[in-house]
Amino acid sequence: MSVSRAVSLTRDLIRCPSITPKDAGALDVVARVLQTVGFETHRLTFSEPGTPDVDNLFAKIGSGAPHLVFAGHTDVVPTGDVSRWSRDPFAAEVVDGAIIGRGASDMKGAIGAFLAATLAFIERHGPPKGTLSFLITGDEEGPSINGTVKMLDWALARGERFDHAIVGEPTNVSSLGDTIKIGRRGSMNGRIRVSGKQGHVAYPHRADNPVPTIARIVAALSAHDFDFGTTHFDPTNLEVSSIDVGNPAVNVIPGEARAQFNVRFNDAWTLETLRDRIRDVVREAAGEARVDVEFMPSNAVSFITQPGEFTGLVARAVEEVTGMTPELSTSGGTSDARFITRACPVVEFGLTNETIHAVDENASIANIDALAAVYHRILEAYFLRPRS
Amino acid sequence: MSVSRAVSLTRDLIRCPSITPKDAGALDVVARVLQTVGFETHRLTFSEPGTPDVDNLFAKIGSGAPHLVFAGHTDVVPTGDVSRWSRDPFAAEVVDGAIIGRGASDMKGAIGAFLAATLAFIERHGPPKGTLSFLITGDEEGPSINGTVKMLDWALARGERFDHAIVGEPTNVSSLGDTIKIGRRGSMNGRIRVSGKQGHVAYPHRADNPVPTIARIVAALSAHDFDFGTTHFDPTNLEVSSIDVGNPAVNVIPGEARAQFNVRFNDAWTLETLRDRIRDVVREAAGEARVDVEFMPSNAVSFITQPGEFTGLVARAVEEVTGMTPELSTSGGTSDARFITRACPVVEFGLTNETIHAVDENASIANIDALAAVYHRILEAYFLRPRS
Ligand SMILES: [Zn+2]
Ligand SMILES: [Zn+2]
Repeated sequence: MSVSRAVSLTRDLIRCPSITPKDAGALDVVARVLQTVGFETHRLTFSEPGTPDVDNLFAKIGSGAPHLVFAGHTDVVPTGDVSRWSRDPFAAEVVDGAIIGRGASDMKGAIGAFLAATLAFIERHGPPKGTLSFLITGDEEGPSINGTVKMLDWALARGERFDHAIVGEPTNVSSLGDTIKIGRRGSMNGRIRVSGKQGHVAYPHRADNPVPTIARIVAALSAHDFDFGTTHFDPTNLEVSSIDVGNPAVNVIPGEARAQFNVRFNDAWTLETLRDRIRDVVREAAGEARVDVEFMPSNAVSFITQPGEFTGLVARAVEEVTGMTPELSTSGGTSDARFITRACPVVEFGLTNETIHAVDENASIANIDALAAVYHRILEAYFLRPRS
Repeated sequence: MSVSRAVSLTRDLIRCPSITPKDAGALDVVARVLQTVGFETHRLTFSEPGTPDVDNLFAKIGSGAPHLVFAGHTDVVPTGDVSRWSRDPFAAEVVDGAIIGRGASDMKGAIGAFLAATLAFIERHGPPKGTLSFLITGDEEGPSINGTVKMLDWALARGERFDHAIVGEPTNVSSLGDTIKIGRRGSMNGRIRVSGKQGHVAYPHRADNPVPTIARIVAALSAHDFDFGTTHFDPTNLEVSSIDVGNPAVNVIPGEARAQFNVRFNDAWTLETLRDRIRDVVREAAGEARVDVEFMPSNAVSFITQPGEFTGLVARAVEEVTGMTPELSTSGGTSDARFITRACPVVEFGLTNETIHAVDENASIANIDALAAVYHRILEAYFLRPRS
């Protein structure tokens, strides 16, 4: 059996146990391949007090417009309990036509596919007329502080101008070709604290129980319709993920109750308007009670790449290879695309997300090869199309 | 200054650091005094797997009807942080006319007063015509398993028949004479568990968040009007004292949420009807969610001693000594009176409860002496009244 370059590179990457913030040689794999066809490569290590240093890679070939950037990450989430895996999560063994390993789908398979597509394109057509670059971070699954944001700042500061970006996140739900992401909802975390007055359950009039108040607030926030969705987005959704009082004494009325929540919000909202609405809902449910609402800093506002020429180019490439008409979706979690959108329009397409972050994460060889073919078509359509 | 016997005995008792389940000599103080005027005394140590052994005292003088029992406890709650006390909590120092010490009001002062009243009565009138007994436990502030319940069983088994009981709990709110307790609400604890399905906040449709459900349940239970009070009782009241999810990850929808509650209920309810009502309220608020409601075993149902001849006798004694017309109340916490009510009508009257269980618990010498006078009047009215 002959193994494609995409598959072979994917396996090389998985064998580097690059759990955030460790690189474990993964970026070297990418840099060396790109150097063989003439890319200039820049290894960038970024630091920030309170976070670990992280390695990143910016590589480019060609010059001027149009400038297409392939963005992604080589870091992976931890394996969890290794004994629950059927194979070593960093051995990249092939079982029943699929590579098993942490990062196979998220997103070393996509990086292997993009590298293979790039090699094939350059071998056939020479360097692109314009610029092709790789923006690969080792800090996507971690705090996302020493990665894409700083690499973009660095690149923009040295004069790079990006026209379009493709992020190789695993966007497909069940079959390769079913979903392109053209935007992401924003994400914001918050905390609620209700202050009451401690006392004994037999004398409730001498106490002020914060528990019913936080229950009313949580019920109101959970039931609140922030909106009913927008053209490209699902409705904004708030989930209260914990309520904690921590009172072991059933006969004691506690003095304080806390809750935490996350909101996934669409383009009908800014952080500002969203915070105002949440404060209003809390205030109405709280009545006279003393309540503090605290919003954590958020670097994840919603963004959208309006459907048009670029999204059409990507969708056509997907359709030609897979025979499927991809949905242009904005659902699901956040990704580094939220940072890249500040520099240029961005679209995400990669493998399927069925097994990501799970035990026995895997990617089928057929899908990796098909993804390489999609990326190849994108490169051809992008760089060889007649200029207008 | 001459110190009364009531005060002197109270101080002797406070100097025994009888934090449940320790006796520390307190019951010996009581037994020795009673023996001097002819009481027969029985020290009773009860055991139960999983609880500490506890000493108790049953003492009696006389025979036949009428049989009045004085019930109480020599054990005390812990001191808490001793450095916050202005005096040693077991030194029984007198400051500004008050004895400072753990148990001064709850309820060693009342035992000192009853002993003094008993001595004075017998010295003046001889042994009562009928029976006077003391039912003193060392397990009222603890699990209440090896105390009053078992002592009553023991006494009833050996043929004792009680006609009326007085419990020396600190019933008064701010002035000695303001409150007699003629009943107590019942108390029941319960737990609620809502089972959902864990997931990621970005994909709420793949999860089932138990938090909004438990919030709705807690809000509904807290707002529910069980009743609007009965002739002698305040409305039934439920307090949810904790909600706990314990989910540190704000982006993760938890799989389970728990809450605990206590209900103080009046004579409109049995344990059975109360449980049914709570289940109904929970079910309606829960909708389709999977919810378990668990009720802890309760030995505290509500009881009432109907106002009549005995409550009138006690109230008159209070009025004659203090000049106040006591309220016949059923509010506040539970006491061992809930066990005694099975054997005979029971009324509670003691010191004030302003400082009980607190730092610098104390009882004024004037109140202890007045309480001894009230008990003395009760003994005279009870044993010397013309028989009908
Ligand atoms: Zn990823
Ligand atoms: Zn007590």
